[in-house]
Amino acid sequence: MPVDAADNVAAVLHGPGNVQIERRPIPTLGDRDVLVEVRSVGVCGSDIHYYEHGRIGSFVVERPLILGHEVSGVVVDRGTRAERHAVGQRVALEPGVPCGRCSECRHGRYNLCQDVRFFATPPIDGAFARYVAIHEDYAFALPPEISDDAGALLEPLSVGIWACWKGGVGLGSRVLVTGAGPIGNLAMQVARAAGATTLVVADVNPDRLERAGRLGASATVNTAERPLSPADGPFDVLLECTGNESVTAAGIEALRPAGSAVLVGMGPGLDARLPLAAMQAREITLVGTFRYANTYPTAIALAAAGRVELDRLVDARFPLEQADRALRANRENGALLKVVVDVHDG
Amino acid sequence: MPVDAADNVAAVLHGPGNVQIERRPIPTLGDRDVLVEVRSVGVCGSDIHYYEHGRIGSFVVERPLILGHEVSGVVVDRGTRAERHAVGQRVALEPGVPCGRCSECRHGRYNLCQDVRFFATPPIDGAFARYVAIHEDYAFALPPEISDDAGALLEPLSVGIWACWKGGVGLGSRVLVTGAGPIGNLAMQVARAAGATTLVVADVNPDRLERAGRLGASATVNTAERPLSPADGPFDVLLECTGNESVTAAGIEALRPAGSAVLVGMGPGLDARLPLAAMQAREITLVGTFRYANTYPTAIALAAAGRVELDRLVDARFPLEQADRALRANRENGALLKVVVDVHDG
Amino acid sequence: MPVDAADNVAAVLHGPGNVQIERRPIPTLGDRDVLVEVRSVGVCGSDIHYYEHGRIGSFVVERPLILGHEVSGVVVDRGTRAERHAVGQRVALEPGVPCGRCSECRHGRYNLCQDVRFFATPPIDGAFARYVAIHEDYAFALPPEISDDAGALLEPLSVGIWACWKGGVGLGSRVLVTGAGPIGNLAMQVARAAGATTLVVADVNPDRLERAGRLGASATVNTAERPLSPADGPFDVLLECTGNESVTAAGIEALRPAGSAVLVGMGPGLDARLPLAAMQAREITLVGTFRYANTYPTAIALAAAGRVELDRLVDARFPLEQADRALRANRENGALLKVVVDVHDG
Amino acid sequence: MPVDAADNVAAVLHGPGNVQIERRPIPTLGDRDVLVEVRSVGVCGSDIHYYEHGRIGSFVVERPLILGHEVSGVVVDRGTRAERHAVGQRVALEPGVPCGRCSECRHGRYNLCQDVRFFATPPIDGAFARYVAIHEDYAFALPPEISDDAGALLEPLSVGIWACWKGGVGLGSRVLVTGAGPIGNLAMQVARAAGATTLVVADVNPDRLERAGRLGASATVNTAERPLSPADGPFDVLLECTGNESVTAAGIEALRPAGSAVLVGMGPGLDARLPLAAMQAREITLVGTFRYANTYPTAIALAAAGRVELDRLVDARFPLEQADRALRANRENGALLKVVVDVHDG
Repeated sequence: MPVDAADNVAAVLHGPGNVQIERRPIPTLGDRDVLVEVRSVGVCGSDIHYYEHGRIGSFVVERPLILGHEVSGVVVDRGTRAERHAVGQRVALEPGVPCGRCSECRHGRYNLCQDVRFFATPPIDGAFARYVAIHEDYAFALPPEISDDAGALLEPLSVGIWACWKGGVGLGSRVLVTGAGPIGNLAMQVARAAGATTLVVADVNPDRLERAGRLGASATVNTAERPLSPADGPFDVLLECTGNESVTAAGIEALRPAGSAVLVGMGPGLDARLPLAAMQAREITLVGTFRYANTYPTAIALAAAGRVELDRLVDARFPLEQADRALRANRENGALLKVVVDVHDG
Repeated sequence: MPVDAADNVAAVLHGPGNVQIERRPIPTLGDRDVLVEVRSVGVCGSDIHYYEHGRIGSFVVERPLILGHEVSGVVVDRGTRAERHAVGQRVALEPGVPCGRCSECRHGRYNLCQDVRFFATPPIDGAFARYVAIHEDYAFALPPEISDDAGALLEPLSVGIWACWKGGVGLGSRVLVTGAGPIGNLAMQVARAAGATTLVVADVNPDRLERAGRLGASATVNTAERPLSPADGPFDVLLECTGNESVTAAGIEALRPAGSAVLVGMGPGLDARLPLAAMQAREITLVGTFRYANTYPTAIALAAAGRVELDRLVDARFPLEQADRALRANRENGALLKVVVDVHDG
Repeated sequence: MPVDAADNVAAVLHGPGNVQIERRPIPTLGDRDVLVEVRSVGVCGSDIHYYEHGRIGSFVVERPLILGHEVSGVVVDRGTRAERHAVGQRVALEPGVPCGRCSECRHGRYNLCQDVRFFATPPIDGAFARYVAIHEDYAFALPPEISDDAGALLEPLSVGIWACWKGGVGLGSRVLVTGAGPIGNLAMQVARAAGATTLVVADVNPDRLERAGRLGASATVNTAERPLSPADGPFDVLLECTGNESVTAAGIEALRPAGSAVLVGMGPGLDARLPLAAMQAREITLVGTFRYANTYPTAIALAAAGRVELDRLVDARFPLEQADRALRANRENGALLKVVVDVHDG
Repeated sequence: MPVDAADNVAAVLHGPGNVQIERRPIPTLGDRDVLVEVRSVGVCGSDIHYYEHGRIGSFVVERPLILGHEVSGVVVDRGTRAERHAVGQRVALEPGVPCGRCSECRHGRYNLCQDVRFFATPPIDGAFARYVAIHEDYAFALPPEISDDAGALLEPLSVGIWACWKGGVGLGSRVLVTGAGPIGNLAMQVARAAGATTLVVADVNPDRLERAGRLGASATVNTAERPLSPADGPFDVLLECTGNESVTAAGIEALRPAGSAVLVGMGPGLDARLPLAAMQAREITLVGTFRYANTYPTAIALAAAGRVELDRLVDARFPLEQADRALRANRENGALLKVVVDVHDG
């Protein structure tokens, strides 16, 4: 085994705003696990939320937690029965490993498995670390066309793929994306790759709108200047990535009859006021989303074929030792779209 | 032509609470229309609402209007090119005739056609009358197994079929029906006919709950006594027939992961507060409904095969001359499930 | 452990026509397995085929094999981590346990898992035995409404459910079932439970047709007397349970435009001549089926609610010691619909 | 009315190989028709077949027939109630006008309408003529990004869109297209636009394969050199555009479990031998296609956005007076992918 057991280092969240660099044991491997030397880890809004608040809803950081769930790396060791990947294989990690047996898993909705073990969700540690272990079936080989950073960003790309699947985005679709952060940007790119030809992106941040325009949006709406209106549509699909109640309602009002609204963004509240009469009169479908399932092969195919841009989303990188700076970077500079922790160089 | 042109009589709404019996000309026939001597017309909640308030939302009764859109009758004359039905054929009428050419029609969603002509919706007259005309393709031959009353009730049955289709109710489905009026009752019966094996009906009216139990509900919840709770479920599908915000929310909370909520009932308001976080965490699908499309052949097949009970829903009947009493009957006696206007005997 | 380790007895196939009763060790349990004392095991056509020919296509009986995969029984022991069923619980067994990790499993198509371990399929033993072990998630608790025999027959019922799902059978469907053996009979019953109102069953055996008629077919066609013709239709769905080329073709020709043909029966050959031009002109969908997935909860719900008849299909039963007679019974008497091996009484 | 009634000229098929240029009356307009001055008409394989054989299956040219159904032009007159297009508007014509009332139409499957009036299908005339009339709802405004030739080719593009819809082609799909003629080429381009990332095209013609490669195929197989094999796959979807029995079978064998085969090409025979056992073991779905429905808005969106290449398919053009040469061109030079009749210049 080439890995020095004293060698693991992780950035550990001990409480709001308190991340410390610590030595940690190399994870022990189940018989079909692989040990992955981490390369790149994207910082997600949920990581930032845990860092700032110590919780997300009912998920509370009660014990020290390693954040980070957008991960690429290299296989450096394998469990006794693992045979899918050779040592040395570059991989992206699908960060949630479901049980494989419950009703949700059997139906192919494994993202809804109650027994999933998902990185960086209490009490499961994430990947701001030199080494992580995962079942070999949740590591996906990366072709050379996909960089380490892009490999990490297959995770938010998966969220965009899932949203487009749920909304039925396809050839000639007219799509409204509300929110132009990393998720909205990737949802828009995926919609474009799926054949959508009208791609309107709405946000309050002109930098993000401009970025969306460069990456394929056909039009943008700065909702700091004017609210969305039905005249912006009609749209076949709304990909809602803000979690904002009034934006969601305005997006729904701009849908065509029998259009679909996909909820991706999480708002602060547990409920929201929605335009029910309009949804009935036009038979709108509203669907919630939670993570994703079966997206990684698709994400890899799209990224390898150049159908989506991932590297161009990365605006800043920090070494593992500065994971706390990475977690603060977005708050300090709202123009940053994606921040990554570059473990390999750490 | 066997019909005396002086012979038509209709119950005409002139304003809230003001229905008058008037002579009206026999409708002129388009070349593919049939003239139908009306037999039975069900009183729908929307008829009652127009009668009491003179409007439903943006639909305002500005000129005298004939109500009634749940209709059976007999073909007594045909346009020059009508050939689908023989004179003497008993028929049920699908009361909305769409344009057949717009995008909604071409996609098979003709219930969303903006140019539909729907009975008893201003300014289109309905069927509280001796004679009505309709395109022959929207008259459906009734087999002898289906009574005149049952023929009229194929219309609310269609609403139930549509709800079950939208919700994907099928073999072994666990279904919650909120609201035990005629629509909820029929939605429940249709769900049962589609293979649903758990059929919980919730209402505040014990008579209606008892009736639902006799017609196939596996359990009932009197929400005047206790609110719905997730412990009543989990359900695969919610068929929401009350339009009540808190009932809708409670029904959604009782759905399984990836469950579906179908909105059938219309509430008083334009919007409603919904449990969005729960809908996302469990990927609930919420879908609005507006009337129905392509349900009549199915409705006839189900009724003729005895898979649903229609006649047992009729609690009172009035002759055409007492249409105003029919429109008041339900308010005066909440135990009445379905009231019909019996034109034939009028 | 209450089970005497010397106690297991099995009927073992050693070659075509050669079944011997032998002592076998009690199966060892994985940590989430349950040990099941077998009660009733249905004889399937595939069992008979292995018994007569020693193979089915590429599946060859090269070592002694225990047949039987339609199974009910009682939990008598549990692995260290098994907790789903109490000892004493009556259960039906879903006889194929998939890997849970491959692409097919993750998509919910676990019946297509290449690594499935399926009872009575070489080299995996089946259940003509006193004791079998299975992962607890593939044992399903039986309510008292379902007898031991009916519990065994949930397996062929699952085939019928799967066929109806694949064909989209629903409210008011017009269904043609070709073949009135146990699978065709159950497919017909399931179609009826799903709301199909036209149920035509075709076969050459008048006994089986008569039985289908008693269990809900709306009409029967004896294809020994006359071939199926388009005039028998149009049908929305064909559930093909014969594997016969000309019957399949005739059934397809009787479908309506955009109808569906579901292939359930296996013919002797690897290919078949199909009416392709008709399939294109009417946009017919033809879909193959292989076992089933996620059917057991539905099967139990239908059987417990009395929506299908299972016990009435059982025409003969034999003790375990006469398993060979059970395997010959159907050939000797074609009027027998379902034969079971009654292990409990053995 | 600006059109001189003596002005119409058409190329009329009088029998196999016998096309004559004749004066014809200007078509009279129904109240919602538009009169279209034809610009470009593509030559389709069906036109060639009628020209060479005087029939296609049961469709027989019994009276003189004008061919041509891939049509663009300019609106030059309107019926009394037509208001969708201004005079002077460039349009593409969807060449089949369905009844709008039958069950197929109401379900949105209007391509299966038995009463459709489809250009160039006996006894309905096509568009090798200076003027044609059509219901305004079946003329689609062309944006400036789409040339006259490209407007005509929206028709075969529609075939490709329909095939991709039927096969569920989407993000990351691995698609096999058999046949690299105009339909296969466009089906491949549409699949790419829908997100397919593996696009293998098979044909016997190296010119056509080379062309497919330039327009986006990821790999090609010359089946004159070696047959298709499962090792070419696995594919998610087969888009079969040859009508050849053995190619179809080989394509099906190369599908993944639960893959889909879409039949687009029409072979010479009414039936074909298919690998049924493989289709069952892997639950393959096989679906026929007949024309298309609701594709034109999508086709226009794709072409206008530059997601597909249409003009580059046009290899030869002939004036209306040489329509017979256009109909022979492809036979005389198999390297020609698409031939158009350029009516405007005639």
